[in-house]
Amino acid sequence: MRVAIVGATGAVGHELMQVLERSSLQLDELLLYASPRSAGKELTFRSRPHTVQVTPEGPIAADVILASAGGSVSKALAHRWAEGGGVVIDNSSAFRYDAGVPLVVPEVNGEAALSHQGIIANPNCTTAIAVVAVAPIHRKYGVKRMIVSTYQATSGAGQKGMDELLEQTHMVLHGKEASHHEFAHPIPFNVIPHIDAFQDNGYTKEEMKVVWETHKIIGDDSIRVSCTAVRIPTLRTHSEAITLELERPASPDEIRALLAEAAGVEVRDDPAAKLYPMPLTASGKYDVEVGRIRESLVFDGGIDLFVSGDQLLKGAALNAVQIAEYLQTHGALKSAQRA
Amino acid sequence: MRVAIVGATGAVGHELMQVLERSSLQLDELLLYASPRSAGKELTFRSRPHTVQVTPEGPIAADVILASAGGSVSKALAHRWAEGGGVVIDNSSAFRYDAGVPLVVPEVNGEAALSHQGIIANPNCTTAIAVVAVAPIHRKYGVKRMIVSTYQATSGAGQKGMDELLEQTHMVLHGKEASHHEFAHPIPFNVIPHIDAFQDNGYTKEEMKVVWETHKIIGDDSIRVSCTAVRIPTLRTHSEAITLELERPASPDEIRALLAEAAGVEVRDDPAAKLYPMPLTASGKYDVEVGRIRESLVFDGGIDLFVSGDQLLKGAALNAVQIAEYLQTHGALKSAQRA
Repeated sequence: MRVAIVGATGAVGHELMQVLERSSLQLDELLLYASPRSAGKELTFRSRPHTVQVTPEGPIAADVILASAGGSVSKALAHRWAEGGGVVIDNSSAFRYDAGVPLVVPEVNGEAALSHQGIIANPNCTTAIAVVAVAPIHRKYGVKRMIVSTYQATSGAGQKGMDELLEQTHMVLHGKEASHHEFAHPIPFNVIPHIDAFQDNGYTKEEMKVVWETHKIIGDDSIRVSCTAVRIPTLRTHSEAITLELERPASPDEIRALLAEAAGVEVRDDPAAKLYPMPLTASGKYDVEVGRIRESLVFDGGIDLFVSGDQLLKGAALNAVQIAEYLQTHGALKSAQRA
Repeated sequence: MRVAIVGATGAVGHELMQVLERSSLQLDELLLYASPRSAGKELTFRSRPHTVQVTPEGPIAADVILASAGGSVSKALAHRWAEGGGVVIDNSSAFRYDAGVPLVVPEVNGEAALSHQGIIANPNCTTAIAVVAVAPIHRKYGVKRMIVSTYQATSGAGQKGMDELLEQTHMVLHGKEASHHEFAHPIPFNVIPHIDAFQDNGYTKEEMKVVWETHKIIGDDSIRVSCTAVRIPTLRTHSEAITLELERPASPDEIRALLAEAAGVEVRDDPAAKLYPMPLTASGKYDVEVGRIRESLVFDGGIDLFVSGDQLLKGAALNAVQIAEYLQTHGALKSAQRA
């Protein structure tokens, strides 16, 4: 099959190529697209150079189009790309809330992908990482309330975000003042409780994405979800402190046993051995680390836990490829009409 | 009056001297004590050199003894220091949970300080920063549940903590692997959900301090409090995401108006102008910054907020000096018997 990456030169594009190298997709040909500024660049895939072309404004002749080119580009072009007969798996927020577009985390609601009409949305990274841990708990114990505080890495703002952290940290260590461009304030040794635009209700769009997307992916609007989304000076992997009120009481041991069997999760929860989720250990890992599992002190029979997940992988590139793999496994990839 | 600092050469000791320079205490003489390793060192106070002496094992001839020498030293010696007739204001956790020892944040329960029997405990930094914002809300609206996630700076582990972050970050920027000594894992560009020792219930002692001390300072054990305490790669100032369930519903505007009048608080809450609490702006500041005030999405009539407070100041040195000032204002400082 033929796979296309739109936005191949970005941070997620880079991860997409890495993940595709190890993927079970029967990939015969890879097409790479990016903005005119990056066109002509050569990237290596399966030890062979691939030339980046300008992102088409019409149909793309591929079975799977993995798009990570930003919301405005996707909004304008994704339907046109899909006219080639392939399915667009879009990493932006452009289509996530459209009723006709499935929003998919394969471990949670993979079957929703099968009903796509040309476009499947890949969820917000923070949400994807949370729901692989929370969805199994919801199914067995019923989540009533979910309170999330995030510790989000600079790569959430792409390669430029990471570069800014590294460069500006270097400045500070050499006694200079840090500047900022990608973030609202200097990020070295700082904490910024502001990711994406503020909404009328005082929450940021990043925080509301966790609410909206948790509802859509888990398929239950009755869960009350709240989030505080915070940028911190790390490079990759988002962490989240999560407090859950449950319909049916669960013990930490029951949750540990449940999550040990859950797909996409690695239970890392042995405080005596100093084992708990951290960016240092979760970065580059496909599974989301889950630990610090303990009885809630505010909800009887509720649970507190901590997760760390590589948001460039499970929060983006990996999840997109896993959606394509799910479609392949279920015989749901049509051969693309060649343009 | 005569004031003594025990632990003068540490990070909090340094801040104590800075705060005393600007304090309203009628300070005539300052005595500086530290471990034998640091004795003989000269520190400048009011432009004059002061020689650090070895911490006494008996009475200290001072009206106020500001102790920041660690829990084991305080546990062994604080009662003896107080035999000089002065009051020991102790920054360690050694006496915080003793029924006969007041645990004081002057803006919240200053009057408790007046009933001391020689020792007053200075609270855990995370708790002190939270309660200046939460206590006024509790008094007016009644806090039922309080869920806290922390973003704690390396200086919570003292000067050595900050040094380790700076040195190890430098290593990483130069392509070397980070090591660790003060923290359980390398801290540069990492997140460590582990501060102080793990307890049997799966919470760390740092997390339980927030529960126990919030109850004691606010004077209400019925508030259900939970905390996830997380070390992040910042230098100073702790931040906290706080979710509150209230007995009586409050709007964000009502909470903003209430906190605008609250002592020790700076409302910094204008998202459109990118104004919210951050270590970058809260460091070195006496007031705790409070912002991101918004209606809770999980509790009807509840409130979410975000605080950043310099934990070396309000969380330690400043609060200790403010306790002494409170005693002075209320005529509760006995002249120390000279040893």
